[in-house]
Order: sequence, then structure tokens, then C-alpha cells
Amino acid sequence: MSIRDNLKRLLAPRHLAFVGGRSMARALKRCADGGFQGQMWLVNPQHASLDGIPCVASVADLPCGPDAVFIATNRELTLTCVAELAARGAGGAICYASGFAETGAEGQALQVRLLQAAGEMALLGPNCYGLLDYLHNVALWPVAHGGKTVEKGVAVLTQSGNFAYNLSMSDRSLPLAYMASVGNQAQLGVAELMDVLLDEPRVTAIGLHLEGLKNVPGFARAAHKALERGIPVIALKTGVSQIGAELALSHTSSLAGSDALYDSLFDRLGVIRVSGPVSFMETLKAAACGNLPAGPSLTGLACSGGDAGLIADYAERNGLSLPKLNEGQRAELAQVLPGYANLVNPLDFTTAIWGDREALERMLDTALRTPADSALLVLDYPAEFTGERKECDLLLELYCQALERHGKTGFVASAFPELLPAAARERLHAHGVAALQGVEDGLAAWGRIAHYRARREALLADGQAALAPICPEAATSAGSLLDEWQSKQALRPFGLPLPQARIGHPRQALLEARSLGYPLVLKVVSADLPHKTEVGGVALNLKDEAALAGALDTMRDSLARHAPQLRFEQVLLERMAAPPLAELIVGIKREPGFGLALVIGAGGILVELLKDSRSLLLPTTDQAIEQALRGLRCAPLLTGFRGGPAVPMPALVAAIRAVADYACENAGQLLELDVNPLLVNAEGAVAVDALIRLA
Amino acid sequence: MSIRDNLKRLLAPRHLAFVGGRSMARALKRCADGGFQGQMWLVNPQHASLDGIPCVASVADLPCGPDAVFIATNRELTLTCVAELAARGAGGAICYASGFAETGAEGQALQVRLLQAAGEMALLGPNCYGLLDYLHNVALWPVAHGGKTVEKGVAVLTQSGNFAYNLSMSDRSLPLAYMASVGNQAQLGVAELMDVLLDEPRVTAIGLHLEGLKNVPGFARAAHKALERGIPVIALKTGVSQIGAELALSHTSSLAGSDALYDSLFDRLGVIRVSGPVSFMETLKAAACGNLPAGPSLTGLACSGGDAGLIADYAERNGLSLPKLNEGQRAELAQVLPGYANLVNPLDFTTAIWGDREALERMLDTALRTPADSALLVLDYPAEFTGERKECDLLLELYCQALERHGKTGFVASAFPELLPAAARERLHAHGVAALQGVEDGLAAWGRIAHYRARREALLADGQAALAPICPEAATSAGSLLDEWQSKQALRPFGLPLPQARIGHPRQALLEARSLGYPLVLKVVSADLPHKTEVGGVALNLKDEAALAGALDTMRDSLARHAPQLRFEQVLLERMAAPPLAELIVGIKREPGFGLALVIGAGGILVELLKDSRSLLLPTTDQAIEQALRGLRCAPLLTGFRGGPAVPMPALVAAIRAVADYACENAGQLLELDVNPLLVNAEGAVAVDALIRLA
Repeated sequence: MSIRDNLKRLLAPRHLAFVGGRSMARALKRCADGGFQGQMWLVNPQHASLDGIPCVASVADLPCGPDAVFIATNRELTLTCVAELAARGAGGAICYASGFAETGAEGQALQVRLLQAAGEMALLGPNCYGLLDYLHNVALWPVAHGGKTVEKGVAVLTQSGNFAYNLSMSDRSLPLAYMASVGNQAQLGVAELMDVLLDEPRVTAIGLHLEGLKNVPGFARAAHKALERGIPVIALKTGVSQIGAELALSHTSSLAGSDALYDSLFDRLGVIRVSGPVSFMETLKAAACGNLPAGPSLTGLACSGGDAGLIADYAERNGLSLPKLNEGQRAELAQVLPGYANLVNPLDFTTAIWGDREALERMLDTALRTPADSALLVLDYPAEFTGERKECDLLLELYCQALERHGKTGFVASAFPELLPAAARERLHAHGVAALQGVEDGLAAWGRIAHYRARREALLADGQAALAPICPEAATSAGSLLDEWQSKQALRPFGLPLPQARIGHPRQALLEARSLGYPLVLKVVSADLPHKTEVGGVALNLKDEAALAGALDTMRDSLARHAPQLRFEQVLLERMAAPPLAELIVGIKREPGFGLALVIGAGGILVELLKDSRSLLLPTTDQAIEQALRGLRCAPLLTGFRGGPAVPMPALVAAIRAVADYACENAGQLLELDVNPLLVNAEGAVAVDALIRLA
Repeated sequence: MSIRDNLKRLLAPRHLAFVGGRSMARALKRCADGGFQGQMWLVNPQHASLDGIPCVASVADLPCGPDAVFIATNRELTLTCVAELAARGAGGAICYASGFAETGAEGQALQVRLLQAAGEMALLGPNCYGLLDYLHNVALWPVAHGGKTVEKGVAVLTQSGNFAYNLSMSDRSLPLAYMASVGNQAQLGVAELMDVLLDEPRVTAIGLHLEGLKNVPGFARAAHKALERGIPVIALKTGVSQIGAELALSHTSSLAGSDALYDSLFDRLGVIRVSGPVSFMETLKAAACGNLPAGPSLTGLACSGGDAGLIADYAERNGLSLPKLNEGQRAELAQVLPGYANLVNPLDFTTAIWGDREALERMLDTALRTPADSALLVLDYPAEFTGERKECDLLLELYCQALERHGKTGFVASAFPELLPAAARERLHAHGVAALQGVEDGLAAWGRIAHYRARREALLADGQAALAPICPEAATSAGSLLDEWQSKQALRPFGLPLPQARIGHPRQALLEARSLGYPLVLKVVSADLPHKTEVGGVALNLKDEAALAGALDTMRDSLARHAPQLRFEQVLLERMAAPPLAELIVGIKREPGFGLALVIGAGGILVELLKDSRSLLLPTTDQAIEQALRGLRCAPLLTGFRGGPAVPMPALVAAIRAVADYACENAGQLLELDVNPLLVNAEGAVAVDALIRLA
């Protein structure tokens, strides 16, 4: 049986075993109390029973290899136990013990032995809290938990046991199907778990709490599978990487930090990134509790002008449109609402019709005729003691019924997070209506989900989500530079447009210039001199032979002074490019574990002012390159700025694709690549300078 | 007695009256139940008693003019009642009835009469929910409320009764001293209430929920008073204004919307703007529950790596620094924490010392020696049923004691908002430790408060907060344009640097040019032609007489073709300016109710790419102008970009101040002003074009 098959047993177990002392007796009891119906065993060699639970003396004494085992012993015994379980054909084991790879070299060696001991048995951890499975009433978990059985729900994977513990306790009615604390990910990691969880049709969305990814290609495959199946993946990625600043020879390296690469990875896979625990939970609820909205238009309903104002502000901020009410709707609403009601979307239907079933139904039927993708009702419950909750209950009931009558996707948000009580949330979720807490966080969550479908379709059509990221080994040396001429010649076969040029000894320059033509640019060429401008190694816009001759003399003198070790033996002559519409920087950044990223940014004076760049993991598609270009702040320069000409987008994309293709072909050795600037004008693009570093 | 004195009676009443039916009997009972000790009367002409409360037949039958009255009758009776109360010398009346100015002209007329009837009596509303006063156990309020008595707390003013109702019910332990729903603000508005509330020393912060301001100068005075007293003002401003896009002749108008003017107003007064109900409450709690932190440095503590990671991310995002632990601290912590603990700030002190009083105390004493302005503990309570809350209680207690021992300001945040129970929050608040809910919102709130002191000191030192905004009447006509020459001559006396120039008939141009010198710029001048470039009315960089003569001919032809109604009778010759380091736009925007705003933005090609502008309400200070300049995205161009020269900041500020001074002097008539571009170089600034529109 493969690890994958054994993992499936772990995620839908027929029988459970707990190895350890009294805390495991309690863990077993929690599963019984939670309604788990299969067989359960407590393994303990020292006691006949613990807390009334009879003990089995050893793994060998178990009647069969259990589908799922929680091991809560010390690290040495864990190793023994895992070997015994693997021999018995157990499905999967969860190793709670710490003291493995997280502690250094000795622990790392122990973890390698643990992995070997497990063989084809599924192994979660070590150094993890384990697995909560609310589809099968299973808590392979060392302590209490706050969740409960669900029919369907989200699967949450987290690198922090504490985060999982607190999330299970959090009073937000997030329907949890599974939650796993992945610990050291010795064998099963985020990617492997996602892959199998996506085969469970009752999993409606995936939530990830990550400090980083151990297996980018595996993650990309799993996230692509989620995208194909239409299961939203919501990621809370924390922690700022230490990597990146090293060897920042080129602009490309300093433009994109590794966190930007996570954005790039998530972006190409349609993974929705959130910024904190609240947006994590609310976005998961928005994704998991009903049908996904088809698009970003919204009908907003509230019983006060204050709340309607909040809806309008937050809808705009989150890219949600509010289609206007038509005349017929306004006339109908005027009949049922008081004269001072403002008949617009979002609609303040006022408290004048509070508790009036017929008026509320007419209002809802009229408002829900608006051709919007979904509906939002903002409603806050007063405290229990007021005795005024039944009108809120009535309104929710009528809203859910009206949504069903109109076949609409809808959600509810309270303005204040705590004012949507658990009972109301659960009733809404039973209707497939997401109950979001806090109108600001709620509309942000809905905005993310409302854009999911269109983004998914675009990514699947374009194919970029299906491309496996290239992940070469980490570089072992600083490598060596190609000079400008070599760099350009390396890129030319891939289709990078270059200026007409001649290379030669400075003595031949005047002769070469005659066949090339003026105006031209003169540059010294040497791999030892990546920054030639600073030492007088570049002369621009030389209009005739006299200018060239003068420039050669000046350059020789300047180099002798500022770079005395350099031999002035090779110069490049290029036709001077026309003033461009825009300057771009195109480069390749290599990040261990992530592979290669294509970085596209504004160049020239704008590079420092705009800090304007986009990163795309390689390989990528023409559509993704074009989208990255259109996403730059300096994009207006490309599309007919101030009535000027537009840049031919296919030619520009092809020039950038040349860099990407070179990088893919040379992924093994390429450490760094910079085309700076790539000049862009109405005729296309031309690479004026280039630099490549190879291992 | 003045309105202000009567308002003081309303805010600390000795006796209360309620005018209306059964709902007022219940309102009176709520005050009795809440502990109000003074006399209370129920006024109703039709009943001898209601719900067991004896009724007084009329205002005339009251034994005295009550300090505070809640009137819950229809709008006509409200008018009568207000007149009678004013005659009896009542302190203040709250008018619950709607149907006044919010409904149109008729209601507006009624509101004018209401205001007259009140005379010097304080009047809150009409169309409002009233006043909750938890210092004096007073609820002049038509329905239930969720608050309770406090010793000190925040004062919240809101334009939405529903917002107030829900806020009072919200389970977040915000200590509320006062909450007022201001309704139509016929007499008492946000400004007047703030002014008097600031005289109450038990008010620790002010919270405002605004759709807009009716009285900008009054608000500015009140906010300045708050700043002087060190009482933070937190504003949730909603709603997007409809104004602004009208008459967008110039760039200045389109650069700044009226919402940007709110930012500008809040900014000069140190008012902290928040984006939603949650940040409103959490920021108020951060401001109100303890001592304000002296600055932005922080010691972070958590019991898991996941939480420590969140602290690090959110601290950075909110401008909070995390000073490093020193070697001594690390050595001490190594003795008390397990070997795998990561000894950094933020510190994950691990759950290994959970419940261990001595170890926790040693950890706290060591960590709190870090020279930081405040401390944060992230802690989540598990659900009650776990029986595991006592360890959390112990940790909170030890944390509060340690803060007191070290004389440190501190706060607590739970990662998940609901996992800091009410009992824990209240215990923390009793210690002066803010209990914030949600580590993301909590650190954002703390970030705002941590920067308050420094910002307050800077604003008070600079004096800008004390300057009353100029608020001329709304313009009644479109006004008329000055031509470029007239505009420049109007600005010159205020010190705006201009190029050397000659004005005259095109026939005289060649002669004038001889005394001016080349290279120069030729422009047609006419108030009928504000956009002269488009019709060929500008010729740049004319290097000699022949070029000028040719340009004159070309211009005459072009104008005849493109602006045939124009008589080519006046041209401006100016010395061509040297290529600048940067181009700016400086303008004046006039917004009804707000007065005049100075808008400073990036000009030239950057104006569209950067959308880079700052607005300052007038009058303003040199410091504020300099700060606005330094806050522009294009600021690097001014301060020695790429090793180039820096712009002399005093000269640039003086040039911009010239525009501001002209505007202040001509506030009554000035409708619009644009200096575009203001060229900036190492010598200073020069205004190359200018346009003024006057009423």
C-alpha cells in the first residue's frame, strides 16, 4: 500500500489507537464522546487500564494494524513504536513528540530514522498537535478542542499547533471538516495532505497557515488540482524571509523580496492570500458556507443609513459593484417604505418595517430583483436581555427564504463582529448563507471570493496554473559574469531584440563605425566591469567620427584612472536608440526552493520613484507577462500616454518571453540576469544593456 | 445662562424628565435600575400613571426646570414642549422625533422654529436617539442599551442612532463614559459637544462616527483643544462625497477629492482616522484603558512561534519597532526557557513554563528590561469547558504585576478576537492594561496610539493645529479667469518666483526679445484661452531672432485655424527655464464648507503615473508645507536624486507659501488657482505657468 493510500485510511479511519499515558486515555474518551463509532485501543505497557480504559500492552498485541494511531511518547519510544506500527500494517501515525529536526543536527538524524521506520505508513509530524476530523468524529489530538461534527466544511492545515488549538476554540462558527497541525512535515507536508483532502467531496475549501513552503512544486500541483476542482484555497502566510538581500549586484535582486515570490506563486495558482486570523476565518466562511458567487455585483440591504454607508464604502474598496435599482423597483419600494427612505443600492430599508412580515417580504422580493451576483444583509442582534432578538430572527428567516425564491447567493454580516450570535450563524449556514462577522472584514472576505470564479477561469484557460515551477538546486558558488556582449549574444537566439552593433578592439572602432552608421553608443566591454558607467566606460549619442574619436580618447583616460587593472581591449559600438516611450527592467531572480522568477519593472528614473515591479515564477505564459505589464504603475506609458503612440504589446511580450525562455533553458546554471534598460517604443522593444551570471 | 452652561447641566444632570408614553416610563425605569439617584419625572397629560410610574400632566406642573429632558412625542408636540421647557429654565432637551430638516423644506422650516423655541436651552437632535451617560447612570435614550457604569472612559459621538445602539450592545468591554447620537445637529453638533466633553476629566478619549462635518471651524477648535489636553480623537468617517468633480478646469481640482480634505483636516489636528467599527473600538480601547505609550518601540511576548510571527509582521506594518534582547537577557532567559526557545523579540516563551509562576515571573522580569516604550502579551483563552483558563488567568495576573514593577505601559491582544473573555478584559482594564481583541487589529490600534504623542508634540510646536481654517461662503457664480500674465502679476507680490518676461503686442515681440535675451518661450496671452498649448499658442526654447520670427508666424496661423474668434494681440516672452530636477503642481481647491486647500503634487509626466498629491487646509505653516513635500512619492527628486543636487527646501517652501498667502488674502473671491508647472532645481523654484479664477 502506498503512502497516499495509507493517508486515505488515516483521514477516514475505521479504528484508532492511542499510545501513551493518562492524556491518551482522555483523548480516546473525547473521541467516544464525540461520536466515533469504530474500535479504539489504548496502548500502554505499564498499566492494565487508565482512567477506566483497558490498555493493550504493545502494538504487537493489537488485533490489527489500526487505520490511525496517535503516539504521545518520548522521541526514542516514538521511533520504536512507528517501526512496530509499520510492521503491523497500520494506516497512519501521528507523532506528537518534539526533539527532532527542529532542534538541530542530532534531532535531524533521528528524524531521518523516523522516516525510514515509517516506510509506506503515513506519518504526520513529528512535533505536531495532530489531526481533527469532524467528518468522522475523530480527534487524534493531545488536548481539548472546540469543534463539532459537520456534514461538510473546510480543511485547515497549519504549521502552528497553537494556531490550530485556538482556531478550534474560536467562536465564529467556521464549519471545520479537518484541521491538521503539520509539525516538522518529515513525510506528510502541506502539499501531500492537500492532494488527498481534495479527493474528499465534503471538503469545500482549504485554509493554509504557513510560515513557508517546503515543497513548492508539490504545492503547485496540489493548488492546481484545487483550482481545477473549484475548491478555493485561502492562505495566511506569515514571517518575513531572511533570504534575498544577498549578492544584490543587480537591480532585479533588490526589486523583489522572497515574500513577493509567494505572492507570485499564489497569484498564478488562484490562491487567495489573507493577512490575519480574522480574514482567514471570514474568507473561509465566505467560501465554504454556500454557493460561490458568480461575480462581483452586489445588492446591499441594511436597516440604517449608517450601515448602508459602510456597505457603500467597503463594496467600492473591495471591487464589488452595486447595480442601480430600476424605476419599477423604486416605485414598488416607495409603496412599502416610509417617505424618507433613500431608494438606492445599498438600500436602507429603515426600521419602520421592523417586525412587519409582509412589508419585509415585499421589500426583499423587490430588492432581490436587482441583477446582482449576490446579496448582503447587514444585521446586528441586540443583547439577549433586550428581548428584541425575535425581530432579527424573523428578518433572517425571511431573507433566507427570499434568497431561495430568487435563486440568489447571499450572505449576512453584522456591523459589529460579536452581534451575530452563534444560533443565528448556524441557522444561516444551514441555509447555505454565509454568516460573516464585522461588515468591514465581511465585505473584504466576500470581495476575495466574488473574484474567485473569474480568476479561476482565466488561469485555467491560460494554462499558467498547470505549469510546474522550475526548482533548480541551490547555487553552490557565486558563479561568474558574462560581459555585456556575451550576455546579449546568449539572449539573441531566444528572440531578444538588440541594437545593431559591432564589437572589436578600440583601434578598429572608427572603421567599424563607418559600416554601422551614426549616431552611436560606445561602451567598454569586460566581464570584470559590470558597472561601466561609473568609471566613464559609456559614451552616448556620438554623432560623427570626430565625436567617436574624442570619446575613445576620453574613455581610455578615464578607465586608466578609475579602473587601472582593466585592459582597454574591447569596445562595443551600437546604434543609438531613439528616445523611448518607457524604460523597463527585465530580470531573473533565483531563490532557493522557489526556483526562478521573472521580474518586470519600471526602469530609468521611475525605478526608484515607483518601486514598481511584478514577479512571475517560471515557466510562465504570454498572458501572464502581458497581465504583469498592465499591472505596473508605469503601464499608462505603454498604452498611448497623453495621446502618444501605444507600444505593440505582442512585440514587447515576445521580448520579455525571450528572457524567460533563456532562463528556463539554462535554469541549472543561471544565477542572475538583468536586462536594464529594455527600451520600449512604438516600433517594439530593444535591450540596451544586459548582464548574466552563471554558476 | 448660555447654551454652553445649559449643555453642562445636560451632561451632569441632577434631575431628569421624560415626556411621552409607555416607552418613556420604561426609559425612566432603566435609569432607576442603572443607579441614577436624582429626581425623575414622567410627563404625560393623558395618564395618571404609566407602568406604575406616576405622571406629571404638563411641563408647567414640574417642580422646576429639569436639567435634562427626553422628549418622545410627535414633531408638533415636540415644538410646544421645547418652548415650555425653555420657559421653565430647563437645562437641555433631547428631541427624538423625526420629520425635520432631514425630510425637506417643510421640515427644515419646522426645525428653524424648533431652534428658536429652544433659545438658550441646550438641544440635542431632533431625529436622534439621545444620550447615554455612564458617569452619571443616565440613559436619555428611547430603547434598551448594553453599557454600564464606568469611572472614566471614552465619549462617542455618532450621526447614526443605530451605530450607537449596536456599539452599546457590542461585547468588547469598551469603557464608555458618554455616547450621543447627534441626529440633525440643529443646535448642538459634534463640535459643541466635543468642546464641553473635553472639560470632563473622566473623558479619556473621543470617538467620532461621521458622515460629514457641518461646522469645520468649530470642529477644528474643539479638536485643537483635545490636542492641547492630550485627549486622542479617533474618527470613523464614512461616505464618499458627491462634490468635487464639478468645474474641473484645472489639474488641481481633479487631484484632491473632498475625502482627501478630511484627511488633511484630521492630519493637521492629530485626529486619528480609522476605517471601520472594529478599528474604531479597538483604537478607542488602546487610547482609553491605560497610559498612552511614549513611542513606537515594543516588547512582544507570546507562547507560540505562530503568534510571535504574527507580532513581528504586524509590528513592522504598523511602524512599531522591536528592540533586540541584549546578551544578559538572552543568558537569563536561557536558564528559564527550554533549549529550543528562540531568544529574540518578539519572544516565544513556549508553553513549557505554562502555569509555572516562578518561571513566568523570571521570564517577564527579564523580557520587560528591554528598553521599549510598551509591552504586548498575545494570549488566547481556550473555551470554558476545557477547565484550562486558570493558567491564562495566572499569566495575566503576573503580566500586570510585572508591568507595574517595571513601570511599563502594556497591553494584551488575543490572536482570535473572541478568545479574550469579558472577565479577563475587565481585569486587565482595572490594571490600566488595554485588552485588545485580535492581534492584527490590536497591533494596528496600538500603532496608531503609539505615534500619537510625537505627532501631538510636533503639531503643537509647529502651531498648525491652532490655525482656524478659512471658510468663505460657497461661490455663487463660475467667476472669471485671469489670463496667465495677470495671474502671475497677482502672485508676484507674495513672492512667487517667475521667469524674466516681457508682455506686448506680437508686433513688438522681436524688439522686446532683444532686451530679454535668448533662449526664450513665446506664448499667446488671453483669458479666453486657458489651454493654449492645444491650439499652438506656446513655442518653447526659441534660440534666436529667426526662430522667434518663425514661431510668431506659425502661431498666428495656428490660432487663426484653431481659435478663430481669438484676436492675436498679446504675447508673453519669457526666458527659457533650465531643465528642472522636478516639476510640481501647486494649486488651490475651494470646497464648500471646508474652505481653501493648498494642493501640492508631482507634475509633468509623473502627475498621471504617480497620482501623487498632498492637500493642506489654509492657513498652513512652513513646516506643514515642507512635510507635505517630503511626503510626496516624487520627494526623492528634491533631495539629491541619484547623486544629483538637492533643491533648496526653504526657497521651494517660500514659493509655495506665496501661493498660500495669496489665497488667504483673497479667500473671499478666489475660486481656483493653478501653478503648473512649478519648475524646481538646485537654485530654487520658478513658476512657468499660472491660472487664477476669481468670483
